[in-house]
Amino acid sequence: MPEGDATHPTAFEMAARQRAISVSEFFLKNRHLLGFDSQSKAVVTTVREAVDNALDACEEAGILPEIAVEISRRGAALRVAVEDNGPGIVEGQIGRIFGKLLYGSRFHKLSQSRGQQGMGISAAGMYGQLTTGLPMHIISRIAGEAQAAELHVSIDTSRNRPDIHRKRHLDWDRPHGTRVEVEIEGRYQRGPHSVESYLKQTAIANPHVTLALRDPDGVEIRFQRSVETLPPLPSEIRPHPHGVELGQLIQMLSDADARTLRQFLERAFSRVGRKTADAIIERASAGLSARSYPRRIAHAEATRLHRAIAGTRISGPRTDCLAPIGEERLLEGLRKEIDASFYTVLTRRPAVYRGNPFQVEVGLAHGKPGRPYLEADDGSTRRRKRRGDREQPAQAADLPGRSDEPVRLLRFANRVPLLYQQPACAITRAATQINWRSYGLRQPKGGLPLAPMVMLVHVASVWVPFTSESKEAVASYPEILRELKLGLQDCGRRLARYLRRDRALRLAEAQRSRIETYLPHVGIALQEILEIGDAERERTVAALDAVLRRQRKI
Amino acid sequence: MPEGDATHPTAFEMAARQRAISVSEFFLKNRHLLGFDSQSKAVVTTVREAVDNALDACEEAGILPEIAVEISRRGAALRVAVEDNGPGIVEGQIGRIFGKLLYGSRFHKLSQSRGQQGMGISAAGMYGQLTTGLPMHIISRIAGEAQAAELHVSIDTSRNRPDIHRKRHLDWDRPHGTRVEVEIEGRYQRGPHSVESYLKQTAIANPHVTLALRDPDGVEIRFQRSVETLPPLPSEIRPHPHGVELGQLIQMLSDADARTLRQFLERAFSRVGRKTADAIIERASAGLSARSYPRRIAHAEATRLHRAIAGTRISGPRTDCLAPIGEERLLEGLRKEIDASFYTVLTRRPAVYRGNPFQVEVGLAHGKPGRPYLEADDGSTRRRKRRGDREQPAQAADLPGRSDEPVRLLRFANRVPLLYQQPACAITRAATQINWRSYGLRQPKGGLPLAPMVMLVHVASVWVPFTSESKEAVASYPEILRELKLGLQDCGRRLARYLRRDRALRLAEAQRSRIETYLPHVGIALQEILEIGDAERERTVAALDAVLRRQRKI
Repeated sequence: MPEGDATHPTAFEMAARQRAISVSEFFLKNRHLLGFDSQSKAVVTTVREAVDNALDACEEAGILPEIAVEISRRGAALRVAVEDNGPGIVEGQIGRIFGKLLYGSRFHKLSQSRGQQGMGISAAGMYGQLTTGLPMHIISRIAGEAQAAELHVSIDTSRNRPDIHRKRHLDWDRPHGTRVEVEIEGRYQRGPHSVESYLKQTAIANPHVTLALRDPDGVEIRFQRSVETLPPLPSEIRPHPHGVELGQLIQMLSDADARTLRQFLERAFSRVGRKTADAIIERASAGLSARSYPRRIAHAEATRLHRAIAGTRISGPRTDCLAPIGEERLLEGLRKEIDASFYTVLTRRPAVYRGNPFQVEVGLAHGKPGRPYLEADDGSTRRRKRRGDREQPAQAADLPGRSDEPVRLLRFANRVPLLYQQPACAITRAATQINWRSYGLRQPKGGLPLAPMVMLVHVASVWVPFTSESKEAVASYPEILRELKLGLQDCGRRLARYLRRDRALRLAEAQRSRIETYLPHVGIALQEILEIGDAERERTVAALDAVLRRQRKI
Repeated sequence: MPEGDATHPTAFEMAARQRAISVSEFFLKNRHLLGFDSQSKAVVTTVREAVDNALDACEEAGILPEIAVEISRRGAALRVAVEDNGPGIVEGQIGRIFGKLLYGSRFHKLSQSRGQQGMGISAAGMYGQLTTGLPMHIISRIAGEAQAAELHVSIDTSRNRPDIHRKRHLDWDRPHGTRVEVEIEGRYQRGPHSVESYLKQTAIANPHVTLALRDPDGVEIRFQRSVETLPPLPSEIRPHPHGVELGQLIQMLSDADARTLRQFLERAFSRVGRKTADAIIERASAGLSARSYPRRIAHAEATRLHRAIAGTRISGPRTDCLAPIGEERLLEGLRKEIDASFYTVLTRRPAVYRGNPFQVEVGLAHGKPGRPYLEADDGSTRRRKRRGDREQPAQAADLPGRSDEPVRLLRFANRVPLLYQQPACAITRAATQINWRSYGLRQPKGGLPLAPMVMLVHVASVWVPFTSESKEAVASYPEILRELKLGLQDCGRRLARYLRRDRALRLAEAQRSRIETYLPHVGIALQEILEIGDAERERTVAALDAVLRRQRKI
């Protein structure tokens, strides 16, 4: 038996090898979980994390965001710099914000924000450190302070703690804001998975934001805001009692400051007033009263209390914790960035999954089906059409695409575009499970419909359940899937009406042109039969034309 | 500007809200990342984490594993118990192993094992705690100790530390081993995503293991080992220099104990002897010598050193860190659990991704295409055939499936079956990107081939890159994808040969039976024409039959 020979260790030897793993070490080794699995994706992820943080900070501070992204070559590496006009960061926090994973202000609160994990920007720094060995470079100035703070920060990965290399104060022409620079091993690419595409989609979902990009070749692109007011700031909520699990309730009870159970219920949860609290307590019955001391409630009573909560009618969660884009702004964003002939947008009412409020928005932008470059064609003519089919040079990804291509699906979570892992996302799942044929589109089995169309879907929530830390796809909770489908179907019906009307219009147009071709001949025939003069003939033809047009309502 | 009004906080107010997030809190909120996103999956994940740990411990200690899984109902919850005959766990370590995320012995070493993250079993405990409020219950005894230790452990999630509730010593009839019990909110289900399916597939990839299951209805299933020896214990290796990134090299240099650069290179890396070390140092040139003190090497020199490493020829990584199943055992496992008429297995030579050795194994088991229940049919007859198409009651998932269904893909990583997230896995990607039509199978575009076949694929590595912490799918590193395809294609060619031979055989069989039907008539005709007697006729027919059979080589 296990005596511990040359090859096999004893239980004691095995115990001696057990060690704690720092969260930074873990993610350094698993960097693909954070979106750093390829050199091109690393660039997009770095930009996204920095821009998301900048947007969150600006909006929270009530500032209309203006963000500049600059990417430049530094030897074999790329330098990514993101500068914002935000409120700036207090000097003492800079180290931990950029040099520690799992550190942030948004994890512990229930309200909609782009960042939620406290990992992204530190992960970008860690990736830079891993691939180039250089620390992050941060400049930040708070409004009213005479100078900006400049720090060089890296992560001590074995302890998940910031290492601050240099710190000084300097003059900066910005009155307030933050600039982050990180050098990474990366590849700058164009196309649907590009920095440009991320920024363009960010502009669509955030029409109050101005974004500027300078790429490694010096090309500059600017996405100018079309709306001059900030979206309302989502408020923070307490958890809804129906979303709380037994073990969580037990933990909350044992941590409670409240002196009585009634007080605990009122304070810890949203939507629980005195009346609801009493109803819950009464239902839980034996051994529990409004005056029970929360910290002394035993497991069996807590189980009853949990069951009582589930059985009590409580109003749905407050939803001012959510800030959807809104139909008006969504339409604005779509019109500004996408050239199409039909637009429809929809903001659904908030719903709840596992106690978390969320809200779905859908927008469709359908290209002009009559335009030749959007028509389906076979392989033989594809090349020619590809070359000449745009009036303007293609920017990032073509939006919308061709009519024989799958629709362009733009996915957003809390206003952030999701560029990767489309197949793993609940949004894709919902879009492919709908029968689009009934709305007049072609659709391969199990796939997205084929149409010159952009399909935009936004999920806003106090806690978006992502399928990985890289925040690229939404997990398929049934409640979320259901809302997504309802939203898409509603927009699908509107699209179907448009397509029917459009088809009827085009048919009428074709008939009209046929009439225009033949009407003169009819006129000549009539002239011969009725033996009338030229003037009479022309009057008759004009009258006929008018009647026919009225009938077709052109 | 940001003065801090009623709604908008100042930078200072924002700073005050920044907080560290414990890794347990993070995964508690993101429990779907660890495989606890649905009640049925939670049961499978709990069993898997406990069984994987048991197998790792037994094999490391040189014990043939015998593992019992019992799942029983406890009110609305399920109790999952897993008991092994392993070496036991030293009492002082039990708390941290079961009550702390990111704690283990396998993360920091490069060798193949099932566990690698130090999260799984603690995550199962945390899920139990969240949903039922109860701590884990652990009994463990080390060989030679008079009694077993019994502990009740939960996680203090806000600090990621174990809470030990009760601890005592008791008599236990096992001489050594560990028993883990956890009560969770869960749903026990059957089918392809079931505990039974996980155990059956584990038995296929681990024919040296005996597994027993008792399900909530008291049904008992036993998978008995078919091999009486343990697989070789994989050895631990140092990193290969070609897999080390610049930042990592800089970190290693600054942590180095070695007094000289040459010593550092020899000690820190595998495959670097004195000669290779000197070649690297010479190539790095200016400012660096064999005697340079590692901790004083500056960034510019380290960059040159890193480039020199990349430019130096170094033998490939050692591969005794890998323990593939092996062709013989793989075949054994397939034959034992799957009833088919053609089997082929293949263990490819080790390869390397990002410095990590890995190895791909493939096995195919093709059902009997001549058997009627496996033939393709149209929808109209499906129902009838479905009902009567099995000689034996279906166990877990039917293996293989029907000939008009996609092949059953069994994915394994380090001998652990992967049951979920099939679409996201590199194995699936490789299997769908191959043109199976050229091997004689039908295949829908972009899908798995249709055949009554089991396709088993195993990826073994010192570090399997999973797409999430729940370890359900392998990330698509190009080197891994390439090896997977080569292995599948090789097996595909063997399958094609079998299918051609089988088709020829069935054709000959059909012709032979036609001959058997008509030969007597031929005999009678001949008898009339040649005017011969009955005996002569029978001799002639027999002779003809023999000649025809020889020609067809039946």
